[in-house]
Amino acid sequence: LRAILLGDLACGYRTQIEAALHTGWDLVSVPDGTAGPERNAALGRADAVVAVRWTGSDPVPAGLRLLQVAAAGYDAVIVDAVPPEVAICNAFGHEPAIGEYAVMTMLAWCHGFLPAAAELRAGRWQMDMQARPPHRELAGSHVLVVGTGRIGRAIGARAAVLGCHVSGINRTVREPPPGFASLDGLAALDRLLPGADFLVLACPLSDETRGLIDARRLALLPPRAVILNVARGAVIAEDALYESLAARRIAGAILDVWWTYPSADDPQPAPSRQPFHELENVIMTPHYSGWTDGLFRRRSADIAANLDRLCRGEPLINVVRPAAAGT
Amino acid sequence: LRAILLGDLACGYRTQIEAALHTGWDLVSVPDGTAGPERNAALGRADAVVAVRWTGSDPVPAGLRLLQVAAAGYDAVIVDAVPPEVAICNAFGHEPAIGEYAVMTMLAWCHGFLPAAAELRAGRWQMDMQARPPHRELAGSHVLVVGTGRIGRAIGARAAVLGCHVSGINRTVREPPPGFASLDGLAALDRLLPGADFLVLACPLSDETRGLIDARRLALLPPRAVILNVARGAVIAEDALYESLAARRIAGAILDVWWTYPSADDPQPAPSRQPFHELENVIMTPHYSGWTDGLFRRRSADIAANLDRLCRGEPLINVVRPAAAGT
Repeated sequence: LRAILLGDLACGYRTQIEAALHTGWDLVSVPDGTAGPERNAALGRADAVVAVRWTGSDPVPAGLRLLQVAAAGYDAVIVDAVPPEVAICNAFGHEPAIGEYAVMTMLAWCHGFLPAAAELRAGRWQMDMQARPPHRELAGSHVLVVGTGRIGRAIGARAAVLGCHVSGINRTVREPPPGFASLDGLAALDRLLPGADFLVLACPLSDETRGLIDARRLALLPPRAVILNVARGAVIAEDALYESLAARRIAGAILDVWWTYPSADDPQPAPSRQPFHELENVIMTPHYSGWTDGLFRRRSADIAANLDRLCRGEPLINVVRPAAAGT
Repeated sequence: LRAILLGDLACGYRTQIEAALHTGWDLVSVPDGTAGPERNAALGRADAVVAVRWTGSDPVPAGLRLLQVAAAGYDAVIVDAVPPEVAICNAFGHEPAIGEYAVMTMLAWCHGFLPAAAELRAGRWQMDMQARPPHRELAGSHVLVVGTGRIGRAIGARAAVLGCHVSGINRTVREPPPGFASLDGLAALDRLLPGADFLVLACPLSDETRGLIDARRLALLPPRAVILNVARGAVIAEDALYESLAARRIAGAILDVWWTYPSADDPQPAPSRQPFHELENVIMTPHYSGWTDGLFRRRSADIAANLDRLCRGEPLINVVRPAAAGT
């Protein structure tokens, strides 16, 4: 069978997909920038396409049965531009990485790690213990996780084993996941915000969650609260968050996702229209929390598993949109 | 009964000791700088002295029965300068803080946190994933802990729940502590070094451990290894470590303890005669890992417990040197 790795990101998985495959596949790399007749020829026929985006501008390969998104998010795939007989699947594997990121940054907040790590390098050394107030510990903190999908559960489980009290908010209310003391629906959010030391956002961006953390809800948080966002920037009202942080109405923020992203036109934009970088109480990282070797290993294994399943006629995993019945 | 809080550090515990006491004590603060007749008068009579150092230059208060060290380390107490009828006790409570510090900094190493946290602040944003190699995760790392006292056990337990494989080395070999896959004597160190992703030093400084990690043992570590030192600087051969790091024979180091410390003569010294601050592969913190609000809370509780026990005639806890029998 023949699979096209479409775009640089998909091509980057090639070696690990090959290593994980158990069935015979001819993998064809089509990096970004392949254009014109060469691109069309490569896309002529394929059983599967592995890609992170599908805009409909490319020809649909003859015989295509699977569009395997090489990411969890498929907002760059125009689902209606994929023929109904083609199944669309995504891939996970970033949740352990983001779980580690979350406990690392919450620990870093409590322990004042960024200033402490800069002190000796800058030739200062404050060993007069009177002048160095003691810092916090993470254990005992109340962590409120909004969105208990794979990422939210990975964060909550790790926070719990480090001694935090973890509560969850989720659209669908089930039994609390491992480590969570409770799980409530979105209607409980306002009631739980005043008790949060850390408000962790790990929900998908949807009509329901866009601007979820607005000025009113920010005002419900206690002064010691820190917001950690690994969901999407737009889950938080940008200006309201800046105002809260600048005025120290909440203690801080840990932001890995942003409101403005690099583009071809502006490859190094400021990540927000507000000067978050001028605030000392913000830990800023460049949307890198899931970008680990483990992600590549797990995601390649998921992708290879679906190619194996397609080859063997077995049910696919991580199905976003099944192939239309009877096709 | 009367207890003297001798020195600024001991005085800093006053409020929390008072809050934790269940018996009647008259607490007298004698801050650093109290001198001459005032000092001698304050030290005239006491049932207990709480201090971090005892050099023998002060008069021994009449009726003294307990020298309560307000720290775990009592290297600043000249034991022979304390009369035999006085019990010497120390206090712990920093181990949860240092356990958190260790997993925080190991995570920070794996996730390249310090450079990532500097990137957006500096106006850079590297979102070209081809140019950003994926970083490591902590889970799956082999962590070798030298010294499985309170601190070593606190570190190993936390590393284990985050998915690390933890081995221990200790002078006294018992059952492996919770989370440890194995526990061996010091003779096994050379055999275990080649398998370590993280070599964690959490042993006391003694004749046996001074210079323990020397050039020969550094050479036994694999190129990916990172040394984490929360013991004492002198456990590692200073020049040999610098050479190994500068030549990238090992991957990195996380150092919270140093070879040179601030003194009255030199309050802001470089922490080593080697320029560790010029190396990118070193995470440097100013001996602050245990300095948390939780430490104060736990340590004050320990100190108050011993004052209560002395008042009630109950056995003391954390005894370093018991009062001589028959006194």
